[in-house]
Amino acid sequence: MIYLDNAATTKPDEECLSRAEKYLYGEFFNPSALYKGGYNLQCEIRAAREDILSFIANKENFELIFTSCGTESDNTALFGAGRRGNVVTTSGEHSAIFSAANELKQRGVEVRFAELNANGSVNVSSLLNLVDGKTSLVSVIHVGNETGAINDIAAVARAVKAKNKFTHFHSDGVQAFGKIPFKLTNDIDFYSISAHKIGGIKGCGALIKRKNIVIKPLIFGGGQEKGVRSGTENVFGIKDFEFAAVKKYNKIKENYNHVRVLHELLWDKLDKSLFTKISGENCSPYILCVAADGLRGETILHEADDRGLIIGTGSACSSNEKNRYSRTILACGVSESLAGGVLRLSFSAETTKEEVVEAAKILNEIVTNRKAVMT
Amino acid sequence: MIYLDNAATTKPDEECLSRAEKYLYGEFFNPSALYKGGYNLQCEIRAAREDILSFIANKENFELIFTSCGTESDNTALFGAGRRGNVVTTSGEHSAIFSAANELKQRGVEVRFAELNANGSVNVSSLLNLVDGKTSLVSVIHVGNETGAINDIAAVARAVKAKNKFTHFHSDGVQAFGKIPFKLTNDIDFYSISAHKIGGIKGCGALIKRKNIVIKPLIFGGGQEKGVRSGTENVFGIKDFEFAAVKKYNKIKENYNHVRVLHELLWDKLDKSLFTKISGENCSPYILCVAADGLRGETILHEADDRGLIIGTGSACSSNEKNRYSRTILACGVSESLAGGVLRLSFSAETTKEEVVEAAKILNEIVTNRKAVMT
Repeated sequence: MIYLDNAATTKPDEECLSRAEKYLYGEFFNPSALYKGGYNLQCEIRAAREDILSFIANKENFELIFTSCGTESDNTALFGAGRRGNVVTTSGEHSAIFSAANELKQRGVEVRFAELNANGSVNVSSLLNLVDGKTSLVSVIHVGNETGAINDIAAVARAVKAKNKFTHFHSDGVQAFGKIPFKLTNDIDFYSISAHKIGGIKGCGALIKRKNIVIKPLIFGGGQEKGVRSGTENVFGIKDFEFAAVKKYNKIKENYNHVRVLHELLWDKLDKSLFTKISGENCSPYILCVAADGLRGETILHEADDRGLIIGTGSACSSNEKNRYSRTILACGVSESLAGGVLRLSFSAETTKEEVVEAAKILNEIVTNRKAVMT
Repeated sequence: MIYLDNAATTKPDEECLSRAEKYLYGEFFNPSALYKGGYNLQCEIRAAREDILSFIANKENFELIFTSCGTESDNTALFGAGRRGNVVTTSGEHSAIFSAANELKQRGVEVRFAELNANGSVNVSSLLNLVDGKTSLVSVIHVGNETGAINDIAAVARAVKAKNKFTHFHSDGVQAFGKIPFKLTNDIDFYSISAHKIGGIKGCGALIKRKNIVIKPLIFGGGQEKGVRSGTENVFGIKDFEFAAVKKYNKIKENYNHVRVLHELLWDKLDKSLFTKISGENCSPYILCVAADGLRGETILHEADDRGLIIGTGSACSSNEKNRYSRTILACGVSESLAGGVLRLSFSAETTKEEVVEAAKILNEIVTNRKAVMT
């Protein structure tokens, strides 16, 4: 099996899993319990919080709240900080922001969507035009989950604050964390991350926030996670997230360079008469978005699956949305004919050159055969 | 170690964990993905949903939504169904309902708290007096997490519907599911359950709901869980929850009878001149709530911990609330002097008679010594 759908989820790292196993079999206590076993787990959670935070932000200004997933993190920021006036976001957001923004509309908050550039990044002047004195929150995805487009969120956040210093700035960093070397600047107030995109397990995410910002929780209860996220902590998931993050950040530049080679190699080996590149030049190397004009991406996906190659078509999380075309891909100005044939090929540090060469061969063959049948 | 804090969390069942392991190591795909590996996991989730549901409700009228924990399930029901008029709940709820109800107040919904009987169950006439034509939701805990009091939720729900047939009825079943033989009646609209209270892992819960009720989600995104709960599904947690539920329900009556013997044995062996029983006669056998008059429960807890006996003091989830006395215990009419000395001793099917006898010995000695020092 060649697995090129790492943007949907990654294979959990076995070394991290075996280190985390003790939180299932031995250290199983409730971290809120007052006895030593419970207290020790509070300390373990605190260590995980500080470890993960240290890779992306300074501990003086930022804190980290564990959640159950990236979607919950996005919702916590959006509903917590986007409570009045208007909220500005982009047409290239993950459905966790897009759907939550549509719910905000129902609650009487005006929501404005900035346009995208052809490469999938946000059109910054379109975005800034939408920000005004009543903008409570701006949310811009860091790395687009379909195109891999990188937004310069530090610059965007700075420009937003220059226009309205009271506006909060959130970014969905799920496809960036552990992959793109980056540190949060003080203009960024909230940042969402997820464990299962970097070799951790499903069921664990986090929202990083500036310490001096108070937001309403999404989930109320026993007051865990400094009152911002109640519910018994998923200690196994949290510790496994920590171990996976440590492992990724220890080799983040090496992995980045390796994956960049894979990205270029795959595009190099794909037949340019069959595929059009959607991802731009400066996108995340972890995602290569291409399209086969006039074909359906799903058809290619299923045939590739039968041949042992696993790929995606846009966002896995949108597969329930029942839309024929990806709204993000259309927002890049891609024609419907091309948008229907979109494939998302996404890598991990464990992907090899041999796999990528084989994947290109399979994809070229499938599309050649399909086109031959059509003519 | 003798572990008598099973109401806070249970030791994950090792057999279930090893069956579920394949969803970490092999079947790691995103269940929303369109290829076979993803689709198969959707089927696995569906099987888990039906299995778990079958133990407690009929599949024609009810459906099950996986969440990240019992707290999220409670919040989903409360914020989803308690959107207008007034909400009636009890003074004996878990903080997941109590804190969420206080948040509802902030949002302009009137919240009314029914009184408790001395044994911790809700005073039904007090509750029914609070229900009127504007009551959108009533929420009554099934088994009190501190006292173990069992509410006859089928009867309460029936009486609520007789008073206002448009009122929705929710129950927090976290301490009942897998322990107390019970089936949901059609008067009950929502029921919360949690994996880690029955030998599953932390980070997985569910909300059971009547199929014909549409509620707003708490978390918006890719539309997973029939649109009611977005976010990539925690497949490992969900399958482990299924296996743990199957195992518990296969022996639910046998376990119930075994734990009832433990409950009676422990109370029998505790020195009645030192301890007062808070739990009533008809409480869940899984929880024995007692109090040592004039002592602090924490002090006893820590000394027991040093001697290898792990017990609780009220709800583990409330340990962040910084309240000196449990609001639930005070609502039972217990004096502050007694409320300060509350201990919650909670069992699992794996607890043995020998452990219970040893626990009573340790607790009797600790309290005897403490009282001797005080005089």
